[in-house]
Amino acid sequence: MSIREEAIQLHKKHQGKLAVASKVPLANRHDLSLAYTPGVAEPCKDIKNDKDLSFEYTCRGNMVAVVSDGTRVLGLGDIGPEAALPVMEGKAVLFKVFGDVDAVPICLDTKDPDKIIEVVRLLQPTFAGINLEDLSSPKCYDIEDALKAQMDIPVFHDDQHGTAIAALSAVINSLRLVKKELASAKIIVNGAGAAGTAIARLIVNAGAKNVIVVDINGALYAGMSGLNRVQERLTQVTNREKQQGSLSDVAKGVDVIIGVSAPGAFTPAIIGAMNPDAVVVAMANPEPEISYAEAKAAGARVAGTGRSDAPNQVNNVTVFPGVFRGAIDVRARQINEEMKIAAAYAIADLVPQAELRDDFVVPDAFDPRVAPAVAAAVARVAMQTGVARIQVDPEEIRAKTAARIKLGR
Amino acid sequence: MSIREEAIQLHKKHQGKLAVASKVPLANRHDLSLAYTPGVAEPCKDIKNDKDLSFEYTCRGNMVAVVSDGTRVLGLGDIGPEAALPVMEGKAVLFKVFGDVDAVPICLDTKDPDKIIEVVRLLQPTFAGINLEDLSSPKCYDIEDALKAQMDIPVFHDDQHGTAIAALSAVINSLRLVKKELASAKIIVNGAGAAGTAIARLIVNAGAKNVIVVDINGALYAGMSGLNRVQERLTQVTNREKQQGSLSDVAKGVDVIIGVSAPGAFTPAIIGAMNPDAVVVAMANPEPEISYAEAKAAGARVAGTGRSDAPNQVNNVTVFPGVFRGAIDVRARQINEEMKIAAAYAIADLVPQAELRDDFVVPDAFDPRVAPAVAAAVARVAMQTGVARIQVDPEEIRAKTAARIKLGR
Repeated sequence: MSIREEAIQLHKKHQGKLAVASKVPLANRHDLSLAYTPGVAEPCKDIKNDKDLSFEYTCRGNMVAVVSDGTRVLGLGDIGPEAALPVMEGKAVLFKVFGDVDAVPICLDTKDPDKIIEVVRLLQPTFAGINLEDLSSPKCYDIEDALKAQMDIPVFHDDQHGTAIAALSAVINSLRLVKKELASAKIIVNGAGAAGTAIARLIVNAGAKNVIVVDINGALYAGMSGLNRVQERLTQVTNREKQQGSLSDVAKGVDVIIGVSAPGAFTPAIIGAMNPDAVVVAMANPEPEISYAEAKAAGARVAGTGRSDAPNQVNNVTVFPGVFRGAIDVRARQINEEMKIAAAYAIADLVPQAELRDDFVVPDAFDPRVAPAVAAAVARVAMQTGVARIQVDPEEIRAKTAARIKLGR
Repeated sequence: MSIREEAIQLHKKHQGKLAVASKVPLANRHDLSLAYTPGVAEPCKDIKNDKDLSFEYTCRGNMVAVVSDGTRVLGLGDIGPEAALPVMEGKAVLFKVFGDVDAVPICLDTKDPDKIIEVVRLLQPTFAGINLEDLSSPKCYDIEDALKAQMDIPVFHDDQHGTAIAALSAVINSLRLVKKELASAKIIVNGAGAAGTAIARLIVNAGAKNVIVVDINGALYAGMSGLNRVQERLTQVTNREKQQGSLSDVAKGVDVIIGVSAPGAFTPAIIGAMNPDAVVVAMANPEPEISYAEAKAAGARVAGTGRSDAPNQVNNVTVFPGVFRGAIDVRARQINEEMKIAAAYAIADLVPQAELRDDFVVPDAFDPRVAPAVAAAVARVAMQTGVARIQVDPEEIRAKTAARIKLGR
């Protein structure tokens, strides 16, 4: 059976992939009188006096919305909200299985950023966090910025930040392996859309000082025409020498090249012209900028892609379940840069220096230690940076996350 | 332990009452490649070409939103969206346990009817139906009317229609027992809010010709001042003789009195002045207009209340799970009056004429035959009235519903 047939069959078999379940018994009138009227009035009255109790007494405390308008779905483009549902539902299932986060898909029947902002804002009382997904660029920036300013729960555009954290974790360990420093490494990010700009910003915030962002028009530099506001801001902290030129021009003699662009964007010549011990992270999906084998043949020491059929799969399924797990366990008001950097290091640290190999720089997506480690790190830094509503021992979060996720069982 | 302590403990124990669950395996890379990328692109592509496939390939097909703004919650009033969550979550749990409908609570951070309408409308691609709950009156009418006009999935304000169907089912069987006809019975509905107006309208649509609606200003009649648009429209089909006066004035010599008003509204004197074989349905919650025992002592032959600690509990938990089960199983575009009447008869018919007793006119809320019977009836009439997107044998729906609900297991 083809993967198409198998996938359609799987989606039809149970009418999708996600269900709800009751966590309480409801076998008799007494159960009913506690879970519903009249007993339910008691938590209602308490929450009326202290809204934060809604995180403790209701499903809100573990509930995340996966919100999309279906304008930029996988490689399929603007396919609309109904057609985006399988992806958002799949994401919700990953949240559950990899992080025991209760996530629900919310696909909206509008492409208007202002309406998307309003709807999500009005959904706030129901959720502990918002995962934005597959929104077209550049409106995704406006939507996220507006929501972050207006909401008091984390708003996280995974296509940006999940991807950025995954990329950073791969870069951290690759540089550890080849004994180079993040601060001095020369790094190219190819692709200046949502993912590329987020990767560049996060890597800079993590300490990289020699980053150049490149798109189809070549290297981005301060004052270049045609930049959007996010790209423009990024040129203030990248490409200090204002290098101009194509990818093959500026990639000569660099240490790391990260791709969130298109299949074929990294030619063997480009890879061959990098510094010794070159690190190639080619994340275009499902076909990377260069395949693992080609990158290695062209001289890369470390290569990673988004694919599961090659070594070093760089995949944000290692990221978002643990990030949200940690954030909502301390009832974080936001997911800030420090928390994202902590998540990247938590992922990287799961492969100790002594175990690092050219073909093993990031932990396996199914490694059950990942989400617990990420959750603990994110929670710790949320508390340290003052965005947590409550204090919880990070080691307790790690242990509880490990106990609650179903992965591999 | 008091019910307060027990209820708070239950709500804290698992962080609320509702979780999500995966319906598909996700134990390895192959599973991941089907439920998520790259396999998930296949159902996306199909749905892009035919949006209705979203009901078949995704959780949408079994997913209902329980939407509230928290302005009229139980007897607690306007307690806000966070404090309303335990009720909406409880309702979602009842949907699941009694009807295997996957429902999610959606509490909105606005009281503005126009914004509520917009949000719900934009949520359409995600859900197979909308259950409106605990919205204050009269805006609940405007919201429901606007959404019904604009949406292509069922929109059902349960406080109106669930209550109306439950009341009608009790009236149907009570009149069967006392051998009176719905068409000729004299019926009072006390309370002219959301529930009262819906009950009166449904009973009239079911064939009652002598209905009078009463509120604190007395009997409602055509031309009376101070009526809202729904009440005014109702006076066109009720109280044809334009009777005026208080409840005790107009309730003399009637056969049925239904209350959705306030504790104590039905005095023994009022019940005593009704016709022989008087039927009293006192639905105020949690304290009825008159207790079961007092109603009987005052001369009622049949009495029913919303309470589980007395005979004849009239409870919309017998209604909404089966109504939505049947509606979404045929992908209904709406829930019309004919479907509601069919639901009431399906509930009533579960107590055969020979088994009817003064203290047993409605089936038990935990009777596992209820939702299957209601679902089958609602689906049948949805198909007959042309609002179903697909045709399914109602007996198949009955059998499948019976097999899928967890009630009493």
